[in-house]
Amino acid sequence: MSTISNRAKTMQESPIRKLIPLANAARKRGLTVFPLNIGQPDIHTPEPIREAIRSFDQHVLAYSPSPGEDYLLEAFSNYYKKNNIQLEPSEIIVTTGGSEAIFFAFLAICDPGDEVIVFEPFYTNYNGMAHQTGVYLRPVKTFAEDGFQLPPMESIEKAINKKTRGILICNPNNPTGTVYEKPALVELAKLAEKHGIYLLADEVYREFTYDGLTHTSIMHIPGTEQNSIMLDSVSKRYSACGARIGVVASKNKELMASCLKFAQARLSSPTVEQWASRAGMLMDPSYFAPILAEYQRRRDTVMEGFSKIPGVVCKTPCGAFYVIAKLPIDDAEAFARWLLTDFNHDGKTVIVAPAAGFYATPGLGKNEIRISYVLEVEKLKAAMEALAVGVKKFAELEKAGKIAK
Amino acid sequence: MSTISNRAKTMQESPIRKLIPLANAARKRGLTVFPLNIGQPDIHTPEPIREAIRSFDQHVLAYSPSPGEDYLLEAFSNYYKKNNIQLEPSEIIVTTGGSEAIFFAFLAICDPGDEVIVFEPFYTNYNGMAHQTGVYLRPVKTFAEDGFQLPPMESIEKAINKKTRGILICNPNNPTGTVYEKPALVELAKLAEKHGIYLLADEVYREFTYDGLTHTSIMHIPGTEQNSIMLDSVSKRYSACGARIGVVASKNKELMASCLKFAQARLSSPTVEQWASRAGMLMDPSYFAPILAEYQRRRDTVMEGFSKIPGVVCKTPCGAFYVIAKLPIDDAEAFARWLLTDFNHDGKTVIVAPAAGFYATPGLGKNEIRISYVLEVEKLKAAMEALAVGVKKFAELEKAGKIAK
Repeated sequence: MSTISNRAKTMQESPIRKLIPLANAARKRGLTVFPLNIGQPDIHTPEPIREAIRSFDQHVLAYSPSPGEDYLLEAFSNYYKKNNIQLEPSEIIVTTGGSEAIFFAFLAICDPGDEVIVFEPFYTNYNGMAHQTGVYLRPVKTFAEDGFQLPPMESIEKAINKKTRGILICNPNNPTGTVYEKPALVELAKLAEKHGIYLLADEVYREFTYDGLTHTSIMHIPGTEQNSIMLDSVSKRYSACGARIGVVASKNKELMASCLKFAQARLSSPTVEQWASRAGMLMDPSYFAPILAEYQRRRDTVMEGFSKIPGVVCKTPCGAFYVIAKLPIDDAEAFARWLLTDFNHDGKTVIVAPAAGFYATPGLGKNEIRISYVLEVEKLKAAMEALAVGVKKFAELEKAGKIAK
Repeated sequence: MSTISNRAKTMQESPIRKLIPLANAARKRGLTVFPLNIGQPDIHTPEPIREAIRSFDQHVLAYSPSPGEDYLLEAFSNYYKKNNIQLEPSEIIVTTGGSEAIFFAFLAICDPGDEVIVFEPFYTNYNGMAHQTGVYLRPVKTFAEDGFQLPPMESIEKAINKKTRGILICNPNNPTGTVYEKPALVELAKLAEKHGIYLLADEVYREFTYDGLTHTSIMHIPGTEQNSIMLDSVSKRYSACGARIGVVASKNKELMASCLKFAQARLSSPTVEQWASRAGMLMDPSYFAPILAEYQRRRDTVMEGFSKIPGVVCKTPCGAFYVIAKLPIDDAEAFARWLLTDFNHDGKTVIVAPAAGFYATPGLGKNEIRISYVLEVEKLKAAMEALAVGVKKFAELEKAGKIAK
């Protein structure tokens, strides 16, 4: 009988999604399961996008051009210019979600066996894209104790070797919520340039910075444009994750010509959702003010919840809508399962993402979880309350040796 | 400065799309350019699909489940059962176009360096997917002279070696329009089973068979289910290429579990277009009768056009909406360019796909072109007329040594 490939066997399951069947089973038993595991915003998709879908009016739902519809490339270019990022439509290719942007970038800069440096914990789907493209993600550690800031450049430089083709950052960061500030980014861009490697920045959370912090794009750093690749998506920006519309952008023409060949191989990105995304990109930036205020309230609610759990290590993050917390337990994976199979607090429980899946180095992150705060404040309060009770109980069970190792 | 990868440098440009800039330039000069290059049907997308888009009504345009929306998996399963194909929703995963279905299948069955047998000429985007996944497509030749039917099993068996993981067919065939009939398919499925390799069938043109021919799915062949992978898409079936909705389907559970991991890595397929595709899958099969009659008329128009060009080799194809023709010229690539840059017939010309891009073996297909008949009969007549004049003139120019080799 035919078998499957080694790369299929060794492909990681999504640590974010793999517990979903347990959550569904818990819901069937009548529990309220607050979803803190996935970055699916509950904020309504803005009306202009929904209206664009309703008004889609082509007789033939035709292929789009491989690099994306002209009107959408134009809309992205204008949006970037509003953000002080100078990118022409020809320097942008529409991708099927930010995922595909990463995929194209990996294919374009790496041959199998080549390396890209990532800062762990990192967005777990980078693993999936690296695995599929034969790229080795070389992790450089960051730590809960200092809010997962970039490490000193010397330790990053140590990770660079002959096979290194790029450094990939996510800013604001998923899964840590960390916002990297300009001085560190300038150093990083210079480091990449010095070694003739690319700096790739996943900036899908660009707008989501709190406490008055402003976002620095790698495209704001002058002089390193030929080494910079920006990855972007409308998913989080406009609560439109289901649109699967992202972009890869660079001023490096050879790189963009390569990405175009990969784009041609998959023909095009979805047509209706390019039309819908355009409506988002044309919206006035004032749209974000109340959204950001809401996310900041939620962030504060989560941090207040953590402050009531003794032994938690978690610095207040300033961006995106994630936070990684180190818990006073040993096994966060078992904890996350237990929350869904053996626990409830007044009929409520939570689904969280065990953080080990966000690390590449075996053994790291075992007592950490990632939380997405994509729930209303009242629900978040209840969720954090249930989580606090859960942590306490589970820690006792571990202490009593009642959790299988 | 950073460079790009070897796999980016050696990635093939789309032979179907690469001439588009020349066609656009010709249009700017005032020419009518009939598009015979791309499989983009002009048939209107059925009203139920367009109505589903207009009625899309979710407050949040959210991620879909990675394997696809339950309602769509259910709709595909029911559609297959109507086609006498027994597939449960759990045996189907929604993909972002048929392209991604091929991509997942290659990843799931092949490690880099493994081989999949294809029958050349073959759908050029298989090249792109193979290139990206490090799969070697081992070509087995088929010939214009016998309508590109499958070769004898002995010659296929000779192409199987230790690295072979599958045999990929497209039935009805893009780019040849050939329909493989049941006896040959049964032999092929048995051959795959004998060698413990997969039989992959791209059946996106399932409904498009002419002259009363019925389509045989690999899922109609009993006893080889564990080795069979079906690839499908709504693109051609419902003139909905822009939806980017396909599926990979198999009764092999381990294979489907692998595909699911790859699906998780890219999160989900587009949400609005899953909703829209459902409306297509629910349509009554009677929808196809007038569409097929129309395509058959077009096929006849193309064949009549070819019959008037002396020296053309082209057997009447019975399926899909493509035909490959061997022309009485030496260099079809130069011819296709010349049609757009230096030729017009009463202000009209055509864009065709040079067929060499559909072959893997260097040197093959050099005097062949692929035509898609996705234009109304009157336009097709005019296009074939222009093509006939073009072939004659170009052959003379070649003879006179006026075409650079």
